[in-house]
Amino acid sequence: MSEVIASYLIHDKNSDFHKKAEGIALGLTVGSWTNLPLLEQEQLKKHKGRVVSVFPLQPCDRVNQYLDNEVNQAIIKIAYPTANFSLDLPAILTTVFGKLSLDGKIKLIDLEFSKELIQAFPGPRFGIEGIRKELNVYDRPLVMSIFKGVLGKDLSYLTEQLKQQALGGVDLVKDDEILFENDLTPFEKRITHGKAVLKDVYEKTGHRTLYAVNVSGRTFDLKEKAKRAKELGADALLFNVFAYGLDVLQALREDDEIALPLMAHPAVSGALTPSEFYGFSNSLLLGKLLRITGADFSLFPSPYGSVALPFEEALSISTELVAPNHYVKKAFPVPSAGIHPGMVPLLVKDFGIDSVINAGGGVHGHPDGAAGGGKAFRDAVDAVLKGQTLQEGAQNSPELSKAIDLWGTVEVKS
Amino acid sequence: MSEVIASYLIHDKNSDFHKKAEGIALGLTVGSWTNLPLLEQEQLKKHKGRVVSVFPLQPCDRVNQYLDNEVNQAIIKIAYPTANFSLDLPAILTTVFGKLSLDGKIKLIDLEFSKELIQAFPGPRFGIEGIRKELNVYDRPLVMSIFKGVLGKDLSYLTEQLKQQALGGVDLVKDDEILFENDLTPFEKRITHGKAVLKDVYEKTGHRTLYAVNVSGRTFDLKEKAKRAKELGADALLFNVFAYGLDVLQALREDDEIALPLMAHPAVSGALTPSEFYGFSNSLLLGKLLRITGADFSLFPSPYGSVALPFEEALSISTELVAPNHYVKKAFPVPSAGIHPGMVPLLVKDFGIDSVINAGGGVHGHPDGAAGGGKAFRDAVDAVLKGQTLQEGAQNSPELSKAIDLWGTVEVKS
Ligand SMILES: [Mg+2]
Ligand SMILES: [Mg+2]
Repeated sequence: MSEVIASYLIHDKNSDFHKKAEGIALGLTVGSWTNLPLLEQEQLKKHKGRVVSVFPLQPCDRVNQYLDNEVNQAIIKIAYPTANFSLDLPAILTTVFGKLSLDGKIKLIDLEFSKELIQAFPGPRFGIEGIRKELNVYDRPLVMSIFKGVLGKDLSYLTEQLKQQALGGVDLVKDDEILFENDLTPFEKRITHGKAVLKDVYEKTGHRTLYAVNVSGRTFDLKEKAKRAKELGADALLFNVFAYGLDVLQALREDDEIALPLMAHPAVSGALTPSEFYGFSNSLLLGKLLRITGADFSLFPSPYGSVALPFEEALSISTELVAPNHYVKKAFPVPSAGIHPGMVPLLVKDFGIDSVINAGGGVHGHPDGAAGGGKAFRDAVDAVLKGQTLQEGAQNSPELSKAIDLWGTVEVKS
Repeated sequence: MSEVIASYLIHDKNSDFHKKAEGIALGLTVGSWTNLPLLEQEQLKKHKGRVVSVFPLQPCDRVNQYLDNEVNQAIIKIAYPTANFSLDLPAILTTVFGKLSLDGKIKLIDLEFSKELIQAFPGPRFGIEGIRKELNVYDRPLVMSIFKGVLGKDLSYLTEQLKQQALGGVDLVKDDEILFENDLTPFEKRITHGKAVLKDVYEKTGHRTLYAVNVSGRTFDLKEKAKRAKELGADALLFNVFAYGLDVLQALREDDEIALPLMAHPAVSGALTPSEFYGFSNSLLLGKLLRITGADFSLFPSPYGSVALPFEEALSISTELVAPNHYVKKAFPVPSAGIHPGMVPLLVKDFGIDSVINAGGGVHGHPDGAAGGGKAFRDAVDAVLKGQTLQEGAQNSPELSKAIDLWGTVEVKS
């Protein structure tokens, strides 16, 4: 039977988690069971939720003190039949974590989709392979940089910044996620002027950089804007998916008249993920759900910066994005914030080749400007892939050398 | 200057909250300030964020123990100029709580909109006054009930349940929020068959009941479905707004071809609100934001049931929904779960006349069935408004009498 299996982390004073799990499995599906006439049981069988497993965890003193109570913990898994919902994420989320999200200390940590159900989701249109093909770049992590301080600045400022970044050889540049429709740098002009600049750079250097423009505004205008972006020759779209909804991302993915790489920004997701008691796990929200709904790139806080995720959390997102899956393509993990060229060996070790190295200050703060910063990153990547140390790589790269002088290198233990 | 002022509750090891507030006000707007040339400062002045206030709170032992650290707390208010964003909620949320939501222990507890900005939002189309006019019911709380156990059941089962509820005299009946498009009780048939049943009841009893049908499915299909519902004569729409996005609710509100009362269900909102460290306050999310984007009704867990909100939280939602506001109509608070007729005096005392008394088990579990349960609620309301005790009211109401025998009454201290 087609179903979705939800895994919850529960903290509860009561220790009878089997009873609680039964209550959820029935309460969120057929309501009651044992007191139903047999005929009705037969009729409702295919709608009945099912307790898959109950896994008790060790109680934790730190949590008990905080809650001023002896609290038990468990991970419970409940299967919900696909017969109960339409094949869209809003219906699935409302089923598995609608009212239940309000019912005590409960966190949704995973959803397992049966193979019939997963096929209702598109996954990335391009995915890692498709993006690599667009860029003609294989066998190395991509390098990305971001605009800095563009609010209130005009188009010439923005395009100059874009040019400098592209000249450094980065593969991708993304809009600032807080840059919305505005008179100084309107959406359509960012696309056309950006495209012209990147064409210039390509003609000079032979290097192609993709620019992800922030598609924003009212939900029901997004598709038209995205189509217009496509018409104007945009390379990719940045999207603040959690200020909208995952189903909106999916709709942008599915529209064949849009057909652009989609870069999901984690803005607002911090309202949903960091509590140990409530919300969603990062691996589910920024990993699995972004991937199945169609993000080609998922940005998330790296474990290294001042705005950081715990290492295991960041890695769990990445793992979900690239895990083998017959039905959905892989998406690029983009661990972000706190990244400088001296960290490339660490990034490659932690996130592998199939990831995007993304930097802001680590590009723009380079002594030779953004062009130097981008070059330093690219040279660091080349060194690492050749099995060299960064110091070795720096011998033929003044840009990498200056970056190391400024930011140092991070020791990688093998 | 038009702006939005965001209030945050912050827990941080560092105690220099002024510095932190300055960092936010600049970091989320112009990036930097004091090192900018005067000319550039002049140019960026209208985009610069502003620290409105920093209010330190007492540290809390319970929290310190939990976090294994001495943690300081403060409420800080930052003003963001409207010049920085387009006039839509996704842009505002990304500005005030985008990246910042990921930056440590920070909870968004309020947004104050300048009067220029609030006018970008529609507020409820009907509001409390408009709904009262539709129902021709003034000067008393409305009474609502919900379907129970309708998954896997057919249309005749559903309409019989609707009829029984309407016969009891409830003003509103809402779909189960986990009832999606399905073959047994499809959306359009629920509307047309439901309408026929309610017309019958009206012709027999003179009482009008509104039925809120769950509009669900893919985001970009919702408007068409809602318009179809309007054409078919639907009374109102139930909407799982937090499985979609607040901007989608706003779009349903603004479309003049839909023009139906909107009932916002809190499903999934528990992923966003309950942590003391992260997410959104209930008053902001289920109160202010639902109201300005256009909900006529906001359902939220009552403070009384097993799925409950703390009393002050529930009240804070209600307060936001009915607070005087020149620019947006008032919306009905619908405290839900754990409600039986014996609680009506308490509900009126806590939530006032301008609220909806909503019950599931307290209607369906009545010895005389849903019709008896509804009647018991209506008679309890009448008694309270006449200044009678429930026992006095029960003298002329066998239904209320039976309800009190079954569930008792809740003492109200004046
Ligand atoms: Mg940014
Ligand atoms: Mg329900």
